[in-house]
Amino acid sequence: MVIVMDGKVKESHIDNLSEKLKSMGFKLQTIKGEDKTVIGIIGDTRKLLSFPFYSYYGVVDVLKVSKPYKLTSREFRELSTIIRIKEVTIGGQEAVLMAGPCAVENEEQIDIIARKVSAIGARVLRGGAFKPRTSPYSFQGLGERGLKMMSEAAKKYGLLVITEVMAIEHIDMIANYADIIQVGARNMQNFMLLKEIGKIKKPVMLKRGMSATIEEFLLSAEYILSEGNKEVMLCERGIRTFENYTRNTLDLSAIPAIKELSHLPIIVDPSHATGRKELVGPMSKAAIAAGADGLIIEVHPNPEEALSDGAQSLELNDFECLISELEQVAQAVGRSMNRIYTSV
Amino acid sequence: MVIVMDGKVKESHIDNLSEKLKSMGFKLQTIKGEDKTVIGIIGDTRKLLSFPFYSYYGVVDVLKVSKPYKLTSREFRELSTIIRIKEVTIGGQEAVLMAGPCAVENEEQIDIIARKVSAIGARVLRGGAFKPRTSPYSFQGLGERGLKMMSEAAKKYGLLVITEVMAIEHIDMIANYADIIQVGARNMQNFMLLKEIGKIKKPVMLKRGMSATIEEFLLSAEYILSEGNKEVMLCERGIRTFENYTRNTLDLSAIPAIKELSHLPIIVDPSHATGRKELVGPMSKAAIAAGADGLIIEVHPNPEEALSDGAQSLELNDFECLISELEQVAQAVGRSMNRIYTSV
Amino acid sequence: MVIVMDGKVKESHIDNLSEKLKSMGFKLQTIKGEDKTVIGIIGDTRKLLSFPFYSYYGVVDVLKVSKPYKLTSREFRELSTIIRIKEVTIGGQEAVLMAGPCAVENEEQIDIIARKVSAIGARVLRGGAFKPRTSPYSFQGLGERGLKMMSEAAKKYGLLVITEVMAIEHIDMIANYADIIQVGARNMQNFMLLKEIGKIKKPVMLKRGMSATIEEFLLSAEYILSEGNKEVMLCERGIRTFENYTRNTLDLSAIPAIKELSHLPIIVDPSHATGRKELVGPMSKAAIAAGADGLIIEVHPNPEEALSDGAQSLELNDFECLISELEQVAQAVGRSMNRIYTSV
Amino acid sequence: MVIVMDGKVKESHIDNLSEKLKSMGFKLQTIKGEDKTVIGIIGDTRKLLSFPFYSYYGVVDVLKVSKPYKLTSREFRELSTIIRIKEVTIGGQEAVLMAGPCAVENEEQIDIIARKVSAIGARVLRGGAFKPRTSPYSFQGLGERGLKMMSEAAKKYGLLVITEVMAIEHIDMIANYADIIQVGARNMQNFMLLKEIGKIKKPVMLKRGMSATIEEFLLSAEYILSEGNKEVMLCERGIRTFENYTRNTLDLSAIPAIKELSHLPIIVDPSHATGRKELVGPMSKAAIAAGADGLIIEVHPNPEEALSDGAQSLELNDFECLISELEQVAQAVGRSMNRIYTSV
Repeated sequence: MVIVMDGKVKESHIDNLSEKLKSMGFKLQTIKGEDKTVIGIIGDTRKLLSFPFYSYYGVVDVLKVSKPYKLTSREFRELSTIIRIKEVTIGGQEAVLMAGPCAVENEEQIDIIARKVSAIGARVLRGGAFKPRTSPYSFQGLGERGLKMMSEAAKKYGLLVITEVMAIEHIDMIANYADIIQVGARNMQNFMLLKEIGKIKKPVMLKRGMSATIEEFLLSAEYILSEGNKEVMLCERGIRTFENYTRNTLDLSAIPAIKELSHLPIIVDPSHATGRKELVGPMSKAAIAAGADGLIIEVHPNPEEALSDGAQSLELNDFECLISELEQVAQAVGRSMNRIYTSV
Repeated sequence: MVIVMDGKVKESHIDNLSEKLKSMGFKLQTIKGEDKTVIGIIGDTRKLLSFPFYSYYGVVDVLKVSKPYKLTSREFRELSTIIRIKEVTIGGQEAVLMAGPCAVENEEQIDIIARKVSAIGARVLRGGAFKPRTSPYSFQGLGERGLKMMSEAAKKYGLLVITEVMAIEHIDMIANYADIIQVGARNMQNFMLLKEIGKIKKPVMLKRGMSATIEEFLLSAEYILSEGNKEVMLCERGIRTFENYTRNTLDLSAIPAIKELSHLPIIVDPSHATGRKELVGPMSKAAIAAGADGLIIEVHPNPEEALSDGAQSLELNDFECLISELEQVAQAVGRSMNRIYTSV
Repeated sequence: MVIVMDGKVKESHIDNLSEKLKSMGFKLQTIKGEDKTVIGIIGDTRKLLSFPFYSYYGVVDVLKVSKPYKLTSREFRELSTIIRIKEVTIGGQEAVLMAGPCAVENEEQIDIIARKVSAIGARVLRGGAFKPRTSPYSFQGLGERGLKMMSEAAKKYGLLVITEVMAIEHIDMIANYADIIQVGARNMQNFMLLKEIGKIKKPVMLKRGMSATIEEFLLSAEYILSEGNKEVMLCERGIRTFENYTRNTLDLSAIPAIKELSHLPIIVDPSHATGRKELVGPMSKAAIAAGADGLIIEVHPNPEEALSDGAQSLELNDFECLISELEQVAQAVGRSMNRIYTSV
Repeated sequence: MVIVMDGKVKESHIDNLSEKLKSMGFKLQTIKGEDKTVIGIIGDTRKLLSFPFYSYYGVVDVLKVSKPYKLTSREFRELSTIIRIKEVTIGGQEAVLMAGPCAVENEEQIDIIARKVSAIGARVLRGGAFKPRTSPYSFQGLGERGLKMMSEAAKKYGLLVITEVMAIEHIDMIANYADIIQVGARNMQNFMLLKEIGKIKKPVMLKRGMSATIEEFLLSAEYILSEGNKEVMLCERGIRTFENYTRNTLDLSAIPAIKELSHLPIIVDPSHATGRKELVGPMSKAAIAAGADGLIIEVHPNPEEALSDGAQSLELNDFECLISELEQVAQAVGRSMNRIYTSV
């Protein structure tokens, strides 16, 4: 960590801060520039993340030299994390496909979808049972009843289940039905929830908050890892910008950036990011080309009848066409889609 | 609600959507333009918020004509909501001052602050006991012990208490100590939490999410109101933009905008918005000039020693100077600061 | 165009606006909803873009039904525009590669680069002679001297030249040396410049402004097309968001979005968008996978010595490796890279 | 300037960069931390703004310690710049009011407005003759004819004239009619234009670009100052964010921020920032409370008939009411509005 002080302040002000830092066990080294004095702090500066530097007279800037997260970082663990769930691996050479409806609506709907997406080659069934909706007047999901339907359909067709948890008191129940627990974008900084999820043994997919920087995203993952749960995958799902043709702006540069900064797998959700089904195909291919470890895509047998987010759901036939194109893009970048069942 | 369809699609596509809407009980009126057909939907269109219009062939745009929130809107309730808590009123002619440390640190700290801010004229003591921090390695708050300290200090000096709730299971405990429950920016769309807070009888201050539009902000308030709790005040605390000199960009135009759209009081938090104590004074005066119903400001007797957010905390003496300037700005816009004790 | 009026205003207010619009030659159709009145305006509503609707009492919303641009739109011209310059086609089945240094520095530098990028398969040599720099203290380019050097190197190795114009009085001079004139992001709404460029006969590449919506981007292209110059290609180069790991956020969803809205070719600049050379490869592949018609990439034989933007410049060898991967991605999405010379 | 290098790289890599910097005349001081090495560069580091640090192996971060602008900075000139034009001063104790129509439409319109705003107390008449419009189909202004009309009306009623220049070839003509030349937001980084304006002797008002940081804003001012023109005032007019209730988000925290960083006066444009006339009043008062040196407000005798931006234009009577409130807010923060004529 590097502290920049106004070069015109008295020695005593520099000493004041220096003494405090030394008393906390840090070593210091000072550079006197033309109009600024720079203090380099040597030691584990993560402890100083909430230190009130700016309250010290003369401090004009505080520059972080080390990353504020540790367990999540590529420096801590050079090898990419590979998460194995039954016969599916996430984060390895193969990119994984997760697909399903925005919301579980009824047994028939989820059965049709599970059968089809399994036949096409998806390995994970997605679907919401508890729906976080912007408006209290929108459909809020079927709750545990929906989880049961999804879990049965997934088993029948050899799929894993991913679904979102929205409250601490639901964690155990959801862990019963799901193979991967999803933390939604709106809860990316619900730190109490993150801590509790860190205490269970179940893979987690953490979605990036709509206005979260990559650094904050990795710090939220750190909350889970620091409680002991190492099976965390990240999910880029669009950030909020001034552009309003798309619902959000899918930040694909976050994929190679995160690959460099962290060892965790990264999945992309083109459906929520764009909010437009005609953009899902191109952005899925782009995500795989950029190095994503998987995709999570909304599909619906009959989008016109969807109770939630129909506008961004692919029809099952369109989804089928997309898959073979994805396979080719994956091969072009030296990977493949995780499609062949090793057992069902 | 107005649906725009491509003027070149066949009648049957327009009929398809029309029949569906009519079967849901809506009346329709259609305008054929030069290259677009517009369908006006008459009825309570809030039910259509999650209707998958874009899945219908030929739909090119969906335009909301009515606001998606109801109880929160100025149309529903023309008179401004005034919240009365003991002898303090929020939302009336007087603007209220809330002040205190970012985090409660110990008995002495909170006692010094409570005494001073009360003497200066604040009516509400703020302070965090459960701290939502971006990093798991930052100070996380004293928990219930902190609440007790704050509650005692507040009683001693005739102040109300406002503090943040971060999880459903904490609601009752916090309601025991606090006069106003705060929902933080990171939880603005934690809908489960909002619903539970809607069920209790306790004033709430809902902070705007860092990337929430004014419409989403009001929809989150609607979650609370629709469960029965009508004592909701809003809090503008800065939105995330590309500008990084300030921590966030304080959106003061949200004050008159919300005053027009809603009957709820609106408080401003210049400390978290700017992240720089030297900007707190000017932005506090600007907020009052723009029509804010109150301010929530971080102060610390010794910012250099603060365990959290010292950079944005005003020293108590600076805070005292600010108050008299605020009083004058309030008068200039036909209001006053709620400073005279009716009882202690 | 659809005007939404408060349903409670008097008839006379509705009549007031209606008469005005009728007097301008528009036909109107009115829908009376429960609490809003909707007026549909039929005719060429582009004339109404700056009509002061909100000054009319009772108007609460103005909804655009038709796109504000015409010549640029896919509706106006269904077939994709293909720009042919000598033996290079842009916008067709083949994606084109433009490469070169940020700034032309000297004869040797531009010769080395031109030889190499030509050998690898680029068809267009990029390079700045007039550099728009954020700071007046940065290197500002060699001016016409740089243009000459670039033009000679390009001819020698069978490349086209693309370079930026920054002022109206430079248009003719630059058109003398360049095959494609670039309008930079900072000038996307320099409407005077756009109009003048619209009057010449020379292909143009218009870069998206850092905070321009897709609609504004297409409106700026409309300025050029409406003056007669139809050979316009667009360039996505990143938009400004709160994320600061990358210099800007490359908005790849703009590619399929623009393909749907417009018939113009779209090129992607991953170098300026990310500002980090290690992200250029992944984002180039992603751009091609998403359907881009070409890439413009910064390269340098010795980035450590670059006078401008070295951080984002690929070394020539890294660039060579990238090309063969790009070729495979292009094939995976049914295209190819425009690499084989038909004549030199 | 401080360079952060990966602590694991070989000495030779550090030496490589160090030698280069020393050869450029800089002194260096190095701090070896636990996993990073920090190099402090001493000297005038503005020359290094475009140095390709990241191209050097091992460089992980570059931290600016000094501000990249000089003439614009408060460090360079501690005393606030006061611009005197005839009997009007800008940047002093009095805040100035500029008012007028978005566009000059005809002689009668500008005469009515000039008479009225002069009577109310404005000192500067604003009005556009060359209108930079997003769409080529919008009204583009009357050109020089409009300038003449405005100039005559201003003289008649003792007002100064401010109007926008959009192209280098217009500078002289506009300087003939105007007392203050405005550079619009879309041209904030039209560096060629800035340089030419820097060469004339005429006060300039530079508007902040829609996506410009405060630092970039001050660097653009530096372009003008470094050419010799010291009479520059800045204008905050809203930045682009995801919020779409207002046209842009007025960043009032930029006022105290700029006051701290720079000695230049800062004016606020609440009309363009909000795009809604009902927000102009509250935001004007907030701007003065936050320390603005003046306001530039759009007014129109009959907004319903305005050819441009009627939605945000105040009616003259509403403007009159606002003034007396502004006067009181100004007094509350120790200032006054520059309203009393010293000569006409």
